[in-house]
Amino acid sequence: MMTSPDIPLRTHCPLCGPAPSGLLWEDAQLRVIRVDDSPFPGYIRVIWRSHAAEMTDLSPAERDHLMRAVYRVEALQRQMLQPDKINLASLGNQVPHLHWHLIPRWRADPCFPDAIWAPGHHDPVRQAAWQQQAQDLSARVPALHDAIATTLKGT
Amino acid sequence: MMTSPDIPLRTHCPLCGPAPSGLLWEDAQLRVIRVDDSPFPGYIRVIWRSHAAEMTDLSPAERDHLMRAVYRVEALQRQMLQPDKINLASLGNQVPHLHWHLIPRWRADPCFPDAIWAPGHHDPVRQAAWQQQAQDLSARVPALHDAIATTLKGT
Repeated sequence: MMTSPDIPLRTHCPLCGPAPSGLLWEDAQLRVIRVDDSPFPGYIRVIWRSHAAEMTDLSPAERDHLMRAVYRVEALQRQMLQPDKINLASLGNQVPHLHWHLIPRWRADPCFPDAIWAPGHHDPVRQAAWQQQAQDLSARVPALHDAIATTLKGT
Repeated sequence: MMTSPDIPLRTHCPLCGPAPSGLLWEDAQLRVIRVDDSPFPGYIRVIWRSHAAEMTDLSPAERDHLMRAVYRVEALQRQMLQPDKINLASLGNQVPHLHWHLIPRWRADPCFPDAIWAPGHHDPVRQAAWQQQAQDLSARVPALHDAIATTLKGT
């Protein structure tokens, strides 16, 4: 996959350069990535391709383009997985290259109702119940990924 | 302050109804609130007035209106406080009424580079250094609040 030469890159930034694994869809400005190494089924990241740190580093049209992709993915997460809540976050403290976390949440998940960055719960009964639910949800995640790739391609 | 009768309210939702304390600015659709009970100077919340849980519960025009307010506040936080990073998050797991957290972050703050919902650091040397920086920043926060109220009024 070629990286367009007009996209500014930072040599040491892990989100600059070739697409990371898990690419579901990309256009000239952004990439939609599935997050596989997470206990939260259906977790997706939307990554701006140029090296910018903050939403207000983008032009208004670029912000709108990025958020429209976020909303499309959120709508598909809700439609395909019926989570109890969606969490959206642009943090970037560790990697200051603009990317959005889109995390479906369930009441039984390891951190609910706290943010996924909070310490998890360690109640064995709760953990066992979540394990079954997470397994059922994970079986539906490939269809979510297909829907994201197909739907965003059509836009 | 009157609540417009056409704004749907949920009886038991803490973000429905009259404006909470710390109101900096509001229009018919959203409120901008300063967060006073936080160790993060300049922390602001932007709260949608109607009871909606997710960005995709809003119309596209409503989403744009909400995010434009978020960007205006982010720009002022950067201009007035020069943080090392801005964190944006719409979580709502505890209060599923759409609200955005806008959190200026500094390398020395109690959680950096983690999310503010992660366990903080407990290094006394680091804590002492941050205490001084936080005090200096807090002295600049009233000017940020004034700028938010003045700037958003003019839009």
